[in-house]
Amino acid sequence: MPPKTKSAGKLISFEGSEGSGKSTQIARLADRLQKSGREVVATREPGGTEIGEQIRNIIVHNSKGDEMTPETELLLFTAARAQVVREVIAPALKRGAVVLSDRFLDSSTVYQGIARNLAPGPVAEINRFAVGNVMPDLTIVIDVPTEVSLQRVRQRASDLPDRMERENITFYKKVREGYLLLAKEWPDRVVVLDGTLTPAAIEKKIWAIVQKRLG
Amino acid sequence: MPPKTKSAGKLISFEGSEGSGKSTQIARLADRLQKSGREVVATREPGGTEIGEQIRNIIVHNSKGDEMTPETELLLFTAARAQVVREVIAPALKRGAVVLSDRFLDSSTVYQGIARNLAPGPVAEINRFAVGNVMPDLTIVIDVPTEVSLQRVRQRASDLPDRMERENITFYKKVREGYLLLAKEWPDRVVVLDGTLTPAAIEKKIWAIVQKRLG
Repeated sequence: MPPKTKSAGKLISFEGSEGSGKSTQIARLADRLQKSGREVVATREPGGTEIGEQIRNIIVHNSKGDEMTPETELLLFTAARAQVVREVIAPALKRGAVVLSDRFLDSSTVYQGIARNLAPGPVAEINRFAVGNVMPDLTIVIDVPTEVSLQRVRQRASDLPDRMERENITFYKKVREGYLLLAKEWPDRVVVLDGTLTPAAIEKKIWAIVQKRLG
Repeated sequence: MPPKTKSAGKLISFEGSEGSGKSTQIARLADRLQKSGREVVATREPGGTEIGEQIRNIIVHNSKGDEMTPETELLLFTAARAQVVREVIAPALKRGAVVLSDRFLDSSTVYQGIARNLAPGPVAEINRFAVGNVMPDLTIVIDVPTEVSLQRVRQRASDLPDRMERENITFYKKVREGYLLLAKEWPDRVVVLDGTLTPAAIEKKIWAIVQKRLG
């Protein structure tokens, strides 16, 4: 198990549907934190390590993506997570860095669990196994209506749209509702922000929350 | 969950350390079964599907192999297993085929659980999640003294020796003892054969067991 207790480092995860604007906000928060003198480590899921990026390739470039079983998908995402936690996140937290993760364990709970209907018990158990005792100190969910997020994704070049567009709108509605549900379950950890505000307005809100929560 | 109940198909898994002679015996048993008129599907772990072979590549060609965490390794093996179970094994069993698997869930119990010291609870839980309700009808462990198995592996060309030789002899002693322990825990399912006998003698023993157990 990676050590975390008594660490001055903080782990902030960003969650939300594709097209919610997570990457923009991570970049802006990283910039503000660095300017305030903090070491910032940004990572993404699946990926963030050499092994994790190889796993990402299997998930993303799986040309006949609908053939991958939901169980395989969950185990691949959590394999990448187990690696990034121990290779990158835990050592960074130990050094006192602020780690910004583009997606973390809540993505598995919501995408593979709620949206793909895997039983919540095993999903939670496998998530726990993958992260050990490394949990986010703060999780920011950027909430966008499903139609808006689909529209944004279709307008941009990325490695995800293929897979994304194979799913129907019902799937992404479940994802959105899943995040809102999580926020109710974990009110101390999860904050939901309105992703239809301007990027500058969201940035200001995030900075206020981070300063208040993380000191 | 893949269906299995009331199936006329049978799943036979082969286990044992590297160099125990599993592949030879699988080929010979497949031949005998086919001659007796059965459909035979042979598969291997990790692998057995397109996605599984991609996962195998990550595990085997991980050049700095000692950097992969045991947790990642377990999740990758079980990801490949989840895929082969649903894509290959369950449909084959439904058709009434005999499936011969070169390694199956016991490999995770022994290698990642016992030899790499992951907690047995989560390993069993993740194994269950990966296989659903598809359990081997028969598991044949080919038991070879650790020194013999290491010597055999060093003499052959394969994609595994690099990784194998990084481990010390203590690791492989734990693997051997782990299999013997499993056989005691699951006497109805797991049969241990002496791998120092001639291939022909082992083949005869396996055929007798298969005929008796599977009818």
